[in-house]
Amino acid sequence: MDSSLRLQQQMKFIVEIDKLKHVLRQTFLIDKSRRENDAEHSWHLAIMAVVLQEHAPAGTDLIRVMAMVLVHDLVEIYAGDTFAYDKVGHQDKDVREQKAADRIFGLLPEGQDQSLRQLWEEYEQQETKESNFALALDRLQPLVHNYYTEGGTWHKFDVPSHLVFQRVKPIAKASPALAEYAVSLINESIEKGWLRREDQ
Amino acid sequence: MDSSLRLQQQMKFIVEIDKLKHVLRQTFLIDKSRRENDAEHSWHLAIMAVVLQEHAPAGTDLIRVMAMVLVHDLVEIYAGDTFAYDKVGHQDKDVREQKAADRIFGLLPEGQDQSLRQLWEEYEQQETKESNFALALDRLQPLVHNYYTEGGTWHKFDVPSHLVFQRVKPIAKASPALAEYAVSLINESIEKGWLRREDQ
Repeated sequence: MDSSLRLQQQMKFIVEIDKLKHVLRQTFLIDKSRRENDAEHSWHLAIMAVVLQEHAPAGTDLIRVMAMVLVHDLVEIYAGDTFAYDKVGHQDKDVREQKAADRIFGLLPEGQDQSLRQLWEEYEQQETKESNFALALDRLQPLVHNYYTEGGTWHKFDVPSHLVFQRVKPIAKASPALAEYAVSLINESIEKGWLRREDQ
Repeated sequence: MDSSLRLQQQMKFIVEIDKLKHVLRQTFLIDKSRRENDAEHSWHLAIMAVVLQEHAPAGTDLIRVMAMVLVHDLVEIYAGDTFAYDKVGHQDKDVREQKAADRIFGLLPEGQDQSLRQLWEEYEQQETKESNFALALDRLQPLVHNYYTEGGTWHKFDVPSHLVFQRVKPIAKASPALAEYAVSLINESIEKGWLRREDQ
């Protein structure tokens, strides 16, 4: 392929993904001033991958984790963010996201479209160390935000603690240390009244 | 060091850097709705590093570039963003940023504080392929935003074209192809009346 056309396609993708900065998550920023967007969230996960790399499974390919978290939410440009505790939204999430993946990764030059899409597919399938660690970071980060905003979205949507414990379970697959840390934040949140015990 | 204390320090850093999401740049988002913040900008550069890696100098360590762009603006949490064309702001920029680096990287456990700070120092010093490529991305991205917002900050601050040509010069050191692309966007912007020719 003509290298100038290839660069044009790459730049078209780079321009299009600017839209991720408009996709709002439910999570609040730690100062509670507003909701976080997907681009900010993805940046936060990528830097967490660097800082917390010693907690990843032995032999984890860090560059793959970083690239994975940078692209893992791109489908939400067209498919929207589905809140973790939204049952209805999850029913057609897969179909919406597959269509969105065709559209966003399809902007890239041949070969590169597949390699970036595969990163996203790998993340969704959760069968590798890299995707397990990426998911652990993705589950840990909003938990930290909910803790530091004294309940954040748990409070706003009246989420009971058993759903939060369930939500962080995958962290243990990648890292016992991070899982232990996550559970300690949840327990402390219950004690402080920021998170409702399931039987209350 | 106690591994639990180490994790506590890492998490303290991860919580503190949430503040980067509040540091506004002058650059507009491509839909012109608002200004971009440093976290969004850093995410954009990191994904550009992945997509445009074939344009990096031969032998560039991609993971180092990615980590570098993820941390390159962290000092702005305390030192603030200095606009590219602000002469006064640049006079004490170095002193402000060195103090900010002590403070932000100092939150990390021993060893890790130095390794992340070195990434930032390397970026500032511009003596390696990795830092040259990271800077090229950092110069290219706002140019793309200014082009797609029909002049963006050039128009707002009445920046003449010779300063923009000067600003993108470092791109050529890392990538002739990206430099050529950047110059083509500038020339087209002048033709379309989005950027003022220096003698006008």
